[in-house]
Amino acid sequence: MLHTDPTAAPPSAFDAATAVSRADGGSLTAVLDPGWDVGGQVLNGGYLLAVAARAAVLDSPHPHPVALSASYLRVTGPGPAVLTVTPGPAGRTLAHALVTVGDPADPTLAVQVTTATLGGEPPVYSSPPPAMPPVEQCLDADATPGGRPVPVVGLRERVETRLDPATAGWTTGQPSGEPVMRAWVRLTDGREPDPLALVLFADVLPPTSWAIGEFGWAPTVQLQVLVRALPAPGWCLVEARAGEVAGGWLDEDYRIWDSTGRLVAQSRQLARLPRG
Amino acid sequence: MLHTDPTAAPPSAFDAATAVSRADGGSLTAVLDPGWDVGGQVLNGGYLLAVAARAAVLDSPHPHPVALSASYLRVTGPGPAVLTVTPGPAGRTLAHALVTVGDPADPTLAVQVTTATLGGEPPVYSSPPPAMPPVEQCLDADATPGGRPVPVVGLRERVETRLDPATAGWTTGQPSGEPVMRAWVRLTDGREPDPLALVLFADVLPPTSWAIGEFGWAPTVQLQVLVRALPAPGWCLVEARAGEVAGGWLDEDYRIWDSTGRLVAQSRQLARLPRG
Repeated sequence: MLHTDPTAAPPSAFDAATAVSRADGGSLTAVLDPGWDVGGQVLNGGYLLAVAARAAVLDSPHPHPVALSASYLRVTGPGPAVLTVTPGPAGRTLAHALVTVGDPADPTLAVQVTTATLGGEPPVYSSPPPAMPPVEQCLDADATPGGRPVPVVGLRERVETRLDPATAGWTTGQPSGEPVMRAWVRLTDGREPDPLALVLFADVLPPTSWAIGEFGWAPTVQLQVLVRALPAPGWCLVEARAGEVAGGWLDEDYRIWDSTGRLVAQSRQLARLPRG
Repeated sequence: MLHTDPTAAPPSAFDAATAVSRADGGSLTAVLDPGWDVGGQVLNGGYLLAVAARAAVLDSPHPHPVALSASYLRVTGPGPAVLTVTPGPAGRTLAHALVTVGDPADPTLAVQVTTATLGGEPPVYSSPPPAMPPVEQCLDADATPGGRPVPVVGLRERVETRLDPATAGWTTGQPSGEPVMRAWVRLTDGREPDPLALVLFADVLPPTSWAIGEFGWAPTVQLQVLVRALPAPGWCLVEARAGEVAGGWLDEDYRIWDSTGRLVAQSRQLARLPRG
């Protein structure tokens, strides 16, 4: 007879998909979930970074990833993956580590991670959030850009994404011409945000190039994420903005505020511009 | 009798201070110049990153550093330093490498570098520069914050820095309360900007925390620099802005425009807040 505890929290799909376990011999493994894709077999860069962050905190004296710099060296596909953590200097305030995914001599992803212990101090200064309509006035991002059929995107089923209508003209074939997107996001599994979820959210929106009519997948080359505070429960507000689109390159600058309006994370990535 | 070519360009102090040479046996060495300091024996993080960038392009199929993510693991002092370049995947569009400074098994600085070949294409989209007074109406940054004596800063002698008066209240004891600084910068040696100089400029201003009255050196923990275009000759406009100052941490978000007003570089760093 199977007993289940009706008061226990349901298992989180995000926690399961980013789980890292220690195999016999001490090596770390994860099973990368094909459901966190951005089309076809391509896994979302924020999802992969959250897995690396989970590996980094396993043996760190500090519980929170506060700075992560990742180079996406090769395609990291779904399935079993080996992670290698090389600890660096560690102290009372922070600790460094290098995390690689795949063959340590030829990894597919390399991440420099700084961990620390985030507290509850009120900020000395914090950028206020932009004006944003309430969630119920925003649009489901699981839409078809420019009226063209796109592959089913698993990421969008796992992260509820409600776009600011002011930045969602591309969903109806009317790109705004300004490479900016804003959205409310939360995990579909009901799990509340924490630093690991913020790492995911730091690469969660469609490419801002879609807002200037350049559709397609924009592969990330380098991505830096800073986690600045422990987020409050509820929806997070994510704003992504490109500073320059030129010569086949695109940057994406993210700022994330929690439900209380506090800036809790920032990221910037360099990506290749989608080819039409 | 010594013959000198009167038409030859004078040697650049920046090029000399960032030179990387190959020793017998193939290892790379640099002599880190104590003159590029930010006080005492502490070398500027952008200067160190420019040295690492020069090592990265030595054997790369591409001439320009376009993305650099650095972890400042330990203090890197002046004097002779060994650099180690571990090449990663390389192709027609871009190449990856890991550059370390110091003992490869316990480096003081680790940098993931992506190199590529920047061309002359006009941008599809480029953020316009902020309003800024002309150079001759700006203030020399070699000033004394808050009327308190500060150590001589070599960096400021090597990079001419002219602060926007609107963001320079701290020089006269009137911090603006907003962590923003804007300045025109150029190399004092007369050398025109290029991607390596942009790497230097991406960490060249005083900490924006000075603008909110928090003086002192703000040690960089992680720094990401993106170089987006080949800069035109002349002064560059640098804007640095903190998004959040909290819990002993500070971020610095840089955007750099060349003399034609084109966005040519971006950076973001996580730093420790100075202790008063």
